[in-house]
Amino acid sequence: MNSTTPLAIGEQQHVRFAEGLGLDCGVTLAPVDIAYRTYGTLSEKRDNAILICHAFTGDQYVAEEHPLTGKPGWWSRMVGPGKPIDTNRFFVICSNVLGGCMGSTGPRSIRTDAEGDGTELWGTAFPPITIRDMVRAQHKLVHALGIEKLFAVIGGSMGGMQVLEWTVTYPQMMLAAMPIATAPFHSAQNIAFNEVGRQAIIADPDWRGGRYWADDVVPARGLAVARMMGHITYLSEEALTRKFGRRMRRGPVSGQGPEGPVSMFSDIFEVESYLRYQGSTFVRRFDANSYLTITRAMDWFDIAADHDGELTHAFAGTPVRFCVVSFSSDWLFPTSAARTLVRALNRAAANVSFVEIETDKGHDAFLLEEPDFDRTVRGFLCGVAEHAGLA
Amino acid sequence: MNSTTPLAIGEQQHVRFAEGLGLDCGVTLAPVDIAYRTYGTLSEKRDNAILICHAFTGDQYVAEEHPLTGKPGWWSRMVGPGKPIDTNRFFVICSNVLGGCMGSTGPRSIRTDAEGDGTELWGTAFPPITIRDMVRAQHKLVHALGIEKLFAVIGGSMGGMQVLEWTVTYPQMMLAAMPIATAPFHSAQNIAFNEVGRQAIIADPDWRGGRYWADDVVPARGLAVARMMGHITYLSEEALTRKFGRRMRRGPVSGQGPEGPVSMFSDIFEVESYLRYQGSTFVRRFDANSYLTITRAMDWFDIAADHDGELTHAFAGTPVRFCVVSFSSDWLFPTSAARTLVRALNRAAANVSFVEIETDKGHDAFLLEEPDFDRTVRGFLCGVAEHAGLA
Repeated sequence: MNSTTPLAIGEQQHVRFAEGLGLDCGVTLAPVDIAYRTYGTLSEKRDNAILICHAFTGDQYVAEEHPLTGKPGWWSRMVGPGKPIDTNRFFVICSNVLGGCMGSTGPRSIRTDAEGDGTELWGTAFPPITIRDMVRAQHKLVHALGIEKLFAVIGGSMGGMQVLEWTVTYPQMMLAAMPIATAPFHSAQNIAFNEVGRQAIIADPDWRGGRYWADDVVPARGLAVARMMGHITYLSEEALTRKFGRRMRRGPVSGQGPEGPVSMFSDIFEVESYLRYQGSTFVRRFDANSYLTITRAMDWFDIAADHDGELTHAFAGTPVRFCVVSFSSDWLFPTSAARTLVRALNRAAANVSFVEIETDKGHDAFLLEEPDFDRTVRGFLCGVAEHAGLA
Repeated sequence: MNSTTPLAIGEQQHVRFAEGLGLDCGVTLAPVDIAYRTYGTLSEKRDNAILICHAFTGDQYVAEEHPLTGKPGWWSRMVGPGKPIDTNRFFVICSNVLGGCMGSTGPRSIRTDAEGDGTELWGTAFPPITIRDMVRAQHKLVHALGIEKLFAVIGGSMGGMQVLEWTVTYPQMMLAAMPIATAPFHSAQNIAFNEVGRQAIIADPDWRGGRYWADDVVPARGLAVARMMGHITYLSEEALTRKFGRRMRRGPVSGQGPEGPVSMFSDIFEVESYLRYQGSTFVRRFDANSYLTITRAMDWFDIAADHDGELTHAFAGTPVRFCVVSFSSDWLFPTSAARTLVRALNRAAANVSFVEIETDKGHDAFLLEEPDFDRTVRGFLCGVAEHAGLA
């Protein structure tokens, strides 16, 4: 894989902000490119737009074939004509996050500061960004599309962090918010897992101090290890047991009698083979420096810290209608984190509903077949539309 | 670190079995060395011996300063004069597991098969071993010490797997068993985490196909990443939050105002700094090929699979008195796994007590200050002694 060649991305929608974006770290990044996709039709009143915020390793290809993997969009089952987020009714927007690697400005973009020479990429010199920076970039896009008020902002996991950041930064620009499988801050355990992933990447000699792109290599082994570990955290123990259990691809070494030595490096358990596959496919579509940049942004996320340490203050007087969703077997963003959020929203007298979906699918449940979850999304959007007189 | 030099291990107790050991894989490993430590005095009747089985990265230095790290023994708070495992009363034995790297035969030992030349180490040519192989080696040691029946076999985590294996392989050689924070089989999630650790090691170019010792290097970065990940699984989310929370070592990049760019590679969160330290100290005391060998043995562990797929059959007619202990916040070996074990023991009409200790300390709780746990250990041993007329 030649990492210095821009990805061939299909029918890309794209906007460049020449004036750039002032970041939380104090740097102004200019220009800023935002790659996005839309589905459905913007109404004449421009009042039917839903912004979907993607998760860490997601992208803007919500409901169509992915240009690199050829797989269906990551939320094809949720977004489309007649689906819970119904594109016959709503105009759906999703942009690649700032810092990403699918067309928006990020570590793989050409460096535009004083030290750039017009060919050098940002790499690890890319300024540190925050979830709020990502949301500011989305805000510019929404504004550029001529939309003054979003019908809703919806997202899961890191997408849910963006949803929450939208509600505290631009509460007047949205009717409704649906933060899914997320938390108002990144926990110590979440940070710890992210740090292991980063260390796995940095430990790979092919990372080359972050300048792998200059040598036309990628830190594939480190990135794959990071992904394998991450993938475990997206599933529940129950889901791993149900999907793989202790099934092996060869006979066990232990058992009724000796069967001769088995190499300890062959594929033995199906769950290992699955993880290795997840790791190897990930490196073909994701940039290692984006991995570092985006995990850092997640780690820094802490809504309360930005509001005198009081989560309730962040939402004081909010006009936004909230529907908070968690999944019972999600241990990366557990229901307890959602409850913390809901309690703060209640104390702030916000309009909030809360649904915990019973499932054994873990954090990934928001991407998978969950009829109760589909009904929740559809029902909430209908309710908001009725309330807003759009029904 | 020069990995080819044998470790300078203090007052090592050591036994060599020239005839070797037949392994589950069909290979006979000969000779086999077992390094061990003892505490207390063996009674004249030789009826007061307790075998302690150490966990994955533990060793035989239970209750004395560790010769490499200088730290107190890993169970100093549990084992000693007047302590719950009272060495005024009991003779305590702990041996380094087969496959380990603290003196017992393992991948870092000189290769003794036909392909060895008297200087070559086993490395990845070390035969695959099982938990039962480890237990067979311990059995030889116990026999060599002139002990016909152990008072008890006790261990946590992988040590608990060995305890369970003892009860099914040598039930007549022990009065009591205390499997702690363990499970009768390794779950898909456990295997998955082990596999990520192995991949991190194998991905390190300094692993050199397992022959790092020949080049006088160690795969320190890969081994550190593996350890960092493992360490997260030993703690609970609550413990990580209590110990570290979101405390930073420098100011946050986000907040009330711009404070200038912060490098995304500096230490930011305390939990990251802690994990890096855990990783870096681990590589000084542990061998990467032992890591691979032992995690494989854990993955293969499945008591039921060795007994017609029925856990109950494994314990049919057992004379052993069991005390099963789990910790409420242990998610690596959760209470549900202990309950599976206890149900099977109950169905087998075994003498079993079960204690779930309430704690937020996660899997590591068995190594930490837990007064309820101490009382459980002391009480169980007293009960068994009374029953056996040793009180």
